[in-house]
Amino acid sequence: MRQHNLARVLHTVAAAGPLSRADVAARIGLTRAAVSTLVDELLRGGLLQERGPGRSGTVGRPGTQLLASDRGPCGIGAEIGVDHLAVCVMDLRGTVRVRADHEARNQGSDPAAVLATLGGMLRGAVERAARADLRPAGLAVAVPGLVLRDTATVLRAPNLGWHDSDLADLLPPGLGPLTVENEASLGALAELWSGPPIPDRDSFIHVSAEIGIGAAVVVDGELLRGAHGFAGELGHVPVRPDGPPCTCGGRGCLEVYAGEDAVLRAAGIEPGPGVRMAALTARCEAGDRIALRAVTRAGTALGIALSGAVNLLDPRRVVIGGSLARLAPWLLPPVGRELTRRTAVAAGGRTTPVPVTASPLGPDGPLIGAARSAVQAALDAPGTLLAG
Amino acid sequence: MRQHNLARVLHTVAAAGPLSRADVAARIGLTRAAVSTLVDELLRGGLLQERGPGRSGTVGRPGTQLLASDRGPCGIGAEIGVDHLAVCVMDLRGTVRVRADHEARNQGSDPAAVLATLGGMLRGAVERAARADLRPAGLAVAVPGLVLRDTATVLRAPNLGWHDSDLADLLPPGLGPLTVENEASLGALAELWSGPPIPDRDSFIHVSAEIGIGAAVVVDGELLRGAHGFAGELGHVPVRPDGPPCTCGGRGCLEVYAGEDAVLRAAGIEPGPGVRMAALTARCEAGDRIALRAVTRAGTALGIALSGAVNLLDPRRVVIGGSLARLAPWLLPPVGRELTRRTAVAAGGRTTPVPVTASPLGPDGPLIGAARSAVQAALDAPGTLLAG
Repeated sequence: MRQHNLARVLHTVAAAGPLSRADVAARIGLTRAAVSTLVDELLRGGLLQERGPGRSGTVGRPGTQLLASDRGPCGIGAEIGVDHLAVCVMDLRGTVRVRADHEARNQGSDPAAVLATLGGMLRGAVERAARADLRPAGLAVAVPGLVLRDTATVLRAPNLGWHDSDLADLLPPGLGPLTVENEASLGALAELWSGPPIPDRDSFIHVSAEIGIGAAVVVDGELLRGAHGFAGELGHVPVRPDGPPCTCGGRGCLEVYAGEDAVLRAAGIEPGPGVRMAALTARCEAGDRIALRAVTRAGTALGIALSGAVNLLDPRRVVIGGSLARLAPWLLPPVGRELTRRTAVAAGGRTTPVPVTASPLGPDGPLIGAARSAVQAALDAPGTLLAG
Repeated sequence: MRQHNLARVLHTVAAAGPLSRADVAARIGLTRAAVSTLVDELLRGGLLQERGPGRSGTVGRPGTQLLASDRGPCGIGAEIGVDHLAVCVMDLRGTVRVRADHEARNQGSDPAAVLATLGGMLRGAVERAARADLRPAGLAVAVPGLVLRDTATVLRAPNLGWHDSDLADLLPPGLGPLTVENEASLGALAELWSGPPIPDRDSFIHVSAEIGIGAAVVVDGELLRGAHGFAGELGHVPVRPDGPPCTCGGRGCLEVYAGEDAVLRAAGIEPGPGVRMAALTARCEAGDRIALRAVTRAGTALGIALSGAVNLLDPRRVVIGGSLARLAPWLLPPVGRELTRRTAVAAGGRTTPVPVTASPLGPDGPLIGAARSAVQAALDAPGTLLAG
């Protein structure tokens, strides 16, 4: 019970700080005395910090303000992309304190080689973090593939050429508990935690893209994982069932029309490391007709696939993240058009369809979501942090 | 806490009885002494019954067996269909004790008139139940339309021609707490409660059909309701985005290919009250080529729409219920074919796709689910039942 209440105080201050002790007590429904005892323990353990008196909105002596610590335990996020690797270190306040990016060619790669490079980046980041008095309390790794639920096993990552790869033994030790997650899921969690003020009431479909199209579904503040951990495969929702063959064995999947390679090729850009979306965005900005037509076609296909998903799930909103977010000005109108035409029933006959927005995190979503998920897991277990 | 434990004992015995006190204690993780006290209270209140010693599988004196009572509180289910009305009374054991069906033409009807007929049926059923010493402890009503989450308001039921109809004031008083739910949702709950032994781990998509196609999604034993209560609109998932217009305003929705009217017309049967699926089933059994082709076409469309849903949700299984269940021998092969082709990714690259089965409840699902949901709600509140 005490651990549970310590965690509640810590989560509350981390999410909404700076807060006074009275603010915390009001938010979590404990007495101010009980909160003070818990806060003292967290202060002594270095998980919270105090700063001078806050604004005097209350009668009497204004309380000092509490913040999650910017020293001590931190979460490490890592991302394995098709043509890049990235790591970052996030403190308990949710601030990214160290970040490193590395261009790579991970298509058809050996997991051990990729993880060796990533391991070097992680060790470097942890060293830099140590200079800021931060020590790792957990690691989450984003991968572009299917991860077996509650394991570190990448079952299939077609764009990397990996299958049945257990990453646990390939990563440096000493970074705390490890989680491996699909990149789209972590992008969605980043959106959830940076989003509206009541995350436990939020329900949305989050679409992201690197080479493939990933998606994740959040229902009432929880990621929908699926029976095996494979939920969210929007990329293989049939858009035109007799359309061109897809690498998955199906035909006319969304990815055939709106996957990054498909859109680049339709826009006359040969896909390859580095050029990708920036080139396409530049052409759209310049008003290039072929590029605009390619993006409109992708948006129409995405809108058709999302119409099915919205009819099925009735979410509060749809968020476009990943590299697709950059194309929002041209992508969102056709998406909205299809949703308006095809989801009248799910909208209860209303004329306003579900709102669709571009994620402000863009391609950083999975990395930020990974680090943030390591931080959240650490905040769940203050006992471990206090002992550490 | 005591109410909570009373409810746990009651649910356990209702779901798995006959059970001895020791069985109950083992299942819910309380001491046998604690369970005995709870059981005694439930026996005194008439919610449980004892019957003579069970099989002596245990050392020592075999305990008497406990069952939920077949007298006292009962759940009432009602179904408003497009061409029928039905009510049933279910005791705490889950046995249907009274049932009444009524053919009706509810298309383009007045809610007040339909509910007046239903009210008469309900009063008749409650009278018959009273003769078996059963008293109503709650009513759930299944409707073929969108129900605003946590209300008794039918927002839209296009096949009835109803919109914004609050049913609460149109139903007889004195039947206990009222819930109004979409028929597909209640069909799915019936499947959940009659299904595998660990319902809280079950995740499935349940497809049902009366005139429209309904579906419901169960995730980890919970009905996915959607932000507004409208989740599960599989009937308006786009199957061929440039296909024929649908009544919803979209094009090529699943309902255009696999809705009851569409299948009947494609099979050369003029849709109308009474004939419907029985005629089609008879023709399929007789090997009628046009009928078989119509059902194959419907199954293909259903398989395409379900492929999208399976890719998105990664369920453990798919269940075909409602009147479509009767067509299972001819419908399931094309459904399975599309799922095999189009969900390889969601299946983690395995060759076995998600299993698809026909619900043994068939068209009775929504009515049984309604009664059962009233019973489950009653079992949740033993304090109310004991006071009643």
